[in-house]
Amino acid sequence: MSNATLSVELTLLDRYWRAANYLSVGQIYLMDNPLLHQPLEPHHIKPRLLGHWGTTPGLNFIYAHLNRIIRQRDLNLLYVCGPGHGGPGMVANSWLEGSYSEIYPHVSSDETGMQRLFKQFSFPGGIPSHAAPETPGSINEGGELGYSLSHAFGAAFDNPELIVPCVIGDGESETGPLAASWQGIKFLNARRDGAVLPVLHLNGYKIASPTILARSSDEDLRKLFSGYGYEPLFVCGSEPAEMHKKMADTLDYAFNRIADFQQQVRSGTAPDLIPKWPMIVLRSPKGWTGPDMVDGQKVADFWRAHQVPVSACRDNDDHRAILENWMRSYQPENLFDKRGELMPELKALAPAGDKRMSATPFANGGRLRQELVTPDIEKFALETGEPGSLTGQATEEFGRYLSKVFLLNPHNFRLFGPDETASNRLSPVFDVTSRTWMAPLKDYDEQLARDGRVMEILSEHQCQGWLEGYLLTGRHGLFNCYEAFIHIVDSMFNQYAKWLKVSRQLSWRKPVSSLNYLLSSHVWRQDHNGYSHQDPGFLDHVANKKADIVRIYLPPDANTLLWVGDHCLRTWDRINVIVAGKQPAPQWLSLSDAIAHCESGMGEWRWASHSGEPDVVMACAGDVPTLETLAAVDLLRGYLPELRIRVVNVVDLLALQTKEQHPHGKSEAEFDALFTQNKPVIFAFHGYPSLIHRLTYQRNNHDNIHVHGFNEEGTTTTPFDMTVLNELDRYHLAQAAILRVPGLAEQHAELLDELQERLDEHHRYVREYGEDMPEVKDWHWPLEGNNKR
Amino acid sequence: MSNATLSVELTLLDRYWRAANYLSVGQIYLMDNPLLHQPLEPHHIKPRLLGHWGTTPGLNFIYAHLNRIIRQRDLNLLYVCGPGHGGPGMVANSWLEGSYSEIYPHVSSDETGMQRLFKQFSFPGGIPSHAAPETPGSINEGGELGYSLSHAFGAAFDNPELIVPCVIGDGESETGPLAASWQGIKFLNARRDGAVLPVLHLNGYKIASPTILARSSDEDLRKLFSGYGYEPLFVCGSEPAEMHKKMADTLDYAFNRIADFQQQVRSGTAPDLIPKWPMIVLRSPKGWTGPDMVDGQKVADFWRAHQVPVSACRDNDDHRAILENWMRSYQPENLFDKRGELMPELKALAPAGDKRMSATPFANGGRLRQELVTPDIEKFALETGEPGSLTGQATEEFGRYLSKVFLLNPHNFRLFGPDETASNRLSPVFDVTSRTWMAPLKDYDEQLARDGRVMEILSEHQCQGWLEGYLLTGRHGLFNCYEAFIHIVDSMFNQYAKWLKVSRQLSWRKPVSSLNYLLSSHVWRQDHNGYSHQDPGFLDHVANKKADIVRIYLPPDANTLLWVGDHCLRTWDRINVIVAGKQPAPQWLSLSDAIAHCESGMGEWRWASHSGEPDVVMACAGDVPTLETLAAVDLLRGYLPELRIRVVNVVDLLALQTKEQHPHGKSEAEFDALFTQNKPVIFAFHGYPSLIHRLTYQRNNHDNIHVHGFNEEGTTTTPFDMTVLNELDRYHLAQAAILRVPGLAEQHAELLDELQERLDEHHRYVREYGEDMPEVKDWHWPLEGNNKR
Repeated sequence: MSNATLSVELTLLDRYWRAANYLSVGQIYLMDNPLLHQPLEPHHIKPRLLGHWGTTPGLNFIYAHLNRIIRQRDLNLLYVCGPGHGGPGMVANSWLEGSYSEIYPHVSSDETGMQRLFKQFSFPGGIPSHAAPETPGSINEGGELGYSLSHAFGAAFDNPELIVPCVIGDGESETGPLAASWQGIKFLNARRDGAVLPVLHLNGYKIASPTILARSSDEDLRKLFSGYGYEPLFVCGSEPAEMHKKMADTLDYAFNRIADFQQQVRSGTAPDLIPKWPMIVLRSPKGWTGPDMVDGQKVADFWRAHQVPVSACRDNDDHRAILENWMRSYQPENLFDKRGELMPELKALAPAGDKRMSATPFANGGRLRQELVTPDIEKFALETGEPGSLTGQATEEFGRYLSKVFLLNPHNFRLFGPDETASNRLSPVFDVTSRTWMAPLKDYDEQLARDGRVMEILSEHQCQGWLEGYLLTGRHGLFNCYEAFIHIVDSMFNQYAKWLKVSRQLSWRKPVSSLNYLLSSHVWRQDHNGYSHQDPGFLDHVANKKADIVRIYLPPDANTLLWVGDHCLRTWDRINVIVAGKQPAPQWLSLSDAIAHCESGMGEWRWASHSGEPDVVMACAGDVPTLETLAAVDLLRGYLPELRIRVVNVVDLLALQTKEQHPHGKSEAEFDALFTQNKPVIFAFHGYPSLIHRLTYQRNNHDNIHVHGFNEEGTTTTPFDMTVLNELDRYHLAQAAILRVPGLAEQHAELLDELQERLDEHHRYVREYGEDMPEVKDWHWPLEGNNKR
Repeated sequence: MSNATLSVELTLLDRYWRAANYLSVGQIYLMDNPLLHQPLEPHHIKPRLLGHWGTTPGLNFIYAHLNRIIRQRDLNLLYVCGPGHGGPGMVANSWLEGSYSEIYPHVSSDETGMQRLFKQFSFPGGIPSHAAPETPGSINEGGELGYSLSHAFGAAFDNPELIVPCVIGDGESETGPLAASWQGIKFLNARRDGAVLPVLHLNGYKIASPTILARSSDEDLRKLFSGYGYEPLFVCGSEPAEMHKKMADTLDYAFNRIADFQQQVRSGTAPDLIPKWPMIVLRSPKGWTGPDMVDGQKVADFWRAHQVPVSACRDNDDHRAILENWMRSYQPENLFDKRGELMPELKALAPAGDKRMSATPFANGGRLRQELVTPDIEKFALETGEPGSLTGQATEEFGRYLSKVFLLNPHNFRLFGPDETASNRLSPVFDVTSRTWMAPLKDYDEQLARDGRVMEILSEHQCQGWLEGYLLTGRHGLFNCYEAFIHIVDSMFNQYAKWLKVSRQLSWRKPVSSLNYLLSSHVWRQDHNGYSHQDPGFLDHVANKKADIVRIYLPPDANTLLWVGDHCLRTWDRINVIVAGKQPAPQWLSLSDAIAHCESGMGEWRWASHSGEPDVVMACAGDVPTLETLAAVDLLRGYLPELRIRVVNVVDLLALQTKEQHPHGKSEAEFDALFTQNKPVIFAFHGYPSLIHRLTYQRNNHDNIHVHGFNEEGTTTTPFDMTVLNELDRYHLAQAAILRVPGLAEQHAELLDELQERLDEHHRYVREYGEDMPEVKDWHWPLEGNNKR
């Protein structure tokens, strides 16, 4: 392209940028008079000025230049906007491209639509101030910072035809998750994946002070990003014409480099090339093109430009004049025609159809999503025989199922985890795939491959961010993690749940596959790692979210995990949390029993219960609580054969709630049929006891529900001792039943003593020998004896 | 030091290292025969082998070399051990230094003690497998990774005489929080703070695969850490003699650099120097000095060395032989005398007394802690006059108090926050101090200074990690944060709560100041930022922890915040969470009333209540719920003057629990006196409603408690509309009272309609004008009229 052509093109591009800036300011300030056809009056100004100007002109600048690249090269680009405060810019660009009016027809592409566009922004009943699900082209919620680059990598994995420019604000760049996410290139395969082009947008300041990277020298930044493995490119300045030229040249260079790397690897000329991917450092003033000074104070190129740079425009004539001059400085009359439509020569700068970044299906992944192909679970079922007679490892069996899922879905399924896939016993997946690894390999490495599809990095933040990006662009996945450490992503979970809640209300956003967590190495089997690894509180966190979004499953054995896992992988627009054991443990249900049990969510285990009305209900949720409950029932049968016990197991935890509280909630009649209206319920629960109380609060029998769970007592000890420390063990459960059935404790005081003696014996044994007594370690539900009916 | 001297010294040092390695292996494997006086028999081996060998020899290597530095230079060093799995090494070194036997006399410094040392490790009733509060010299819980370096910086701030070597495992180096924490040097003042010496210990692997930084080239690492602002120094190899020489030379160089920087800045020869602080990259084999191969598989220098490298030592004679040869390779007979004591020439290598890293008071901060000097809160009280008549901003008033705390405690108090101190309206602190800033300054910068004591980085992880390090070394601090984003540190909170629980049980660990959170810009006043910024769930998370550790305060106005904040800053060994508003709002209580109210934790507001037995209790917790409750009471009085209403406000949230559940819990009689045994309670709550149900579950009247709180409905809207969306507003509360008082709804159906009409009117108004109706925006508790009694 000759310099002369470039100059004409960039002159137009500059007008396009000004149009986006004009629309951004308009959204923050105006509720009427959108084209400034009249002098600005107080009643044109919104009463509350809410929005963020500082980052917006830079975002618009990048957007306009990427449009040029798309048209020039006919590429699929997904714009990930890290500075969430840049909502006005993202919305403005969508309106300029026409996609906004296509999705929201009342916000038409003319003056009327522009007035509505302006008024609705940050306005009650309108749209949020940040990039949000409502924003076309967005997969990154504005608000909490740190996840843009991991979202970008997640979007690029297995999308070879996609390039993801990702703008990282300099505030965001201080966060931990973002700092770690630069390493994403070590997991990006130039052949099978797309590319990510990070644009570190340094405008100098966060809310009220400078940022670390903004005050770092170019030399330090060059070293830093070279050290991460990138080729850093700098675009720095404030004079628009010069900046346009620099940006266009730099983007040309960067996209040439990307194309060149991809060509070399994909054509086979350099299949093992590890590219020095380009990244851009864009230094431009905060609040660029906005007012320099307000009330004698520095605003542009300073933190005061962060939000609303001139704030009293309704009441203060000087402020209003600053605003009007500012808006008129963009020359709206040269950007929009009299009807308020973008001038045709500017319209021509935007890509067409699905190539528009605001309309790309990659930002509305449900449009691209293909159903996951799942194998028949019967092929992976354990033949359990009599309940409790077989020993099996739930997650390992499920790993076999997952290995088949990998084979059936070679391009749109990945497994994510922080170096715990093998530890969580999902190793069968390594029979068919490997860990993704782009860094150098050694000849003795195992289960590492350039095209592996198990994504392991010791950062729960990256696992979550990658998976979110992967799902939102239409694919499927599972995040496996130690239960205790999933709290690391509590806040990311929150934001994603919020994203889903809103996007489900938008008919134009098509459903995406559910975000699935498989939590293993759970609180009860972190006996070897100790107290720091013991925390079941993620379930409480999840239960706070909107009922139509979240599900919690506690399968007690391998076949129930198989059904639950298969089910979750086939759902959409939800967050499914599965907690399952990895250790050898007794198996309870055949596959057909497991299916029936899981489909109803909870149920009586008749083979372990007396028929008819019980004296006591022994309820359980979770694999270890189920084991201890059945062992307690076994004890009680031996001692008190006349005591009528009903065993109820709960897999679908939130079904404990009422139908009004949760779509899976059991009706009053169903609940009472299981838990009775007035009999004591000894509930052995995987997590903190209060969660069961909270879920059953509205139930008739809730006053009689006595929960044993994790009481925040833990250390490095034996598995059984962990249950004893928290009074979840069989002896405590049996004691509880005796104490709660009216009259029983008085009749059987000696039995309570005997159970206590067995607890004491355990205590002595385990502290002397360092392992559990055989009677608890090897306990199986008896096939013969006192439990036969 | 001549080469000849070095060589003798390093030969001794190598023996010391071997002693530590021997003791580490012994802890993982043996329960008897600690000195291998007999051939190894199965019964000498623990039945369950739990522990982590991989990282340990490297940790011991660093430890031994740091001992040399301490003796050579008489320094105070605090060893922060990031690889938490290195528990055996940290414990071994403490035992070698004698501090272990001083703290735990039954683990004496002889063969008997050694046997106990070995057996107790990862053994029921013994000690955890990771570095933990039980471990002398540790301030960093092993387990969850990512916080070592921020702990190290927190320890170094305001401790000019301390140097903190911080070992970062290469697994940990992949985490987000750690990646961001390298920037800590941008906040470290060489004059007023100590120094941090990061040692990136790359042994190549995490649990089951290589790590990113381990497979990065030296050149890339050099660039990366230079880019962060460090001078990276490399110590790489596996041959012990060579490695000792390299490490000694490198540490000499590094400590010389540190001393030189400090001298230049402190003497005034270069007061504005920004040092290129040294950091060390130590590449040594995982499982260094352990078995190379087991069962024909590569173990040393591979991930298989991570945990227990040879695992079947009880049952498999070959394995046991490998173990015995391995342990004998350290030549225990040349390390320990016949009684099992460390040889005197090796004992002489350890520093003495408090200079021992395992005995330094900096790792037991309660020994160094000085009481915070707090001003008289009367001086900061608002003169409120009649309840509701004055408008004030709670956090701004508290900011005035904090500014005085800064003045009174110039060297041991800091305020931490992610760029939100001004946004949270604590700006009065900037009258007396500034934000800490070591990077370049511009002439127009404001509130930034080299010796500022407000620590702002846009990373909640760093804020939390720094504060933890600061507190654990004996100082005081406060973390202010947006409420929604404090979830980012949920998991760090968990780990710290666990740390406190255990350390409180250890009499040798002296109390440290409480970790205080001030959460503002809370869920109800993030109307401008929208749904992503709206989440009150941290309170639920906190409530799961042990009752003696945690406190939650919801002061409804400025004077109550003043009392609560002052109180929390003066407590120890707790985690205090304060949620308070920053916006202009009616003030309710004079300081004397505030003191009485806060001291009792909750109470009836008689000036807003009818006397005697009520028809309904209107309860509230949190500033916005309190405002809406009083407005609802005002409405009800106007409409239904005969309805007897009692207003109860709760400040100390966990006091809703019983005395058995929480030390602040109200007795049954106290609770019933406030909330009645059978009257409807309309409870307006700041957070998710379920938390109130959970806390009051055991109360007599719990079936009659009807909670209005955050129902996960939010967007960018007006403040009042946020309450309407979640039915926490005055109209919904008034409706709820009418519906819950028996018979009232039937008599006053038209009143319910009228309240609904006012809701509808609000809905229309706010969507048309974009602001709240004056009647709700400017509402104050009336001084005249229907509320007078």
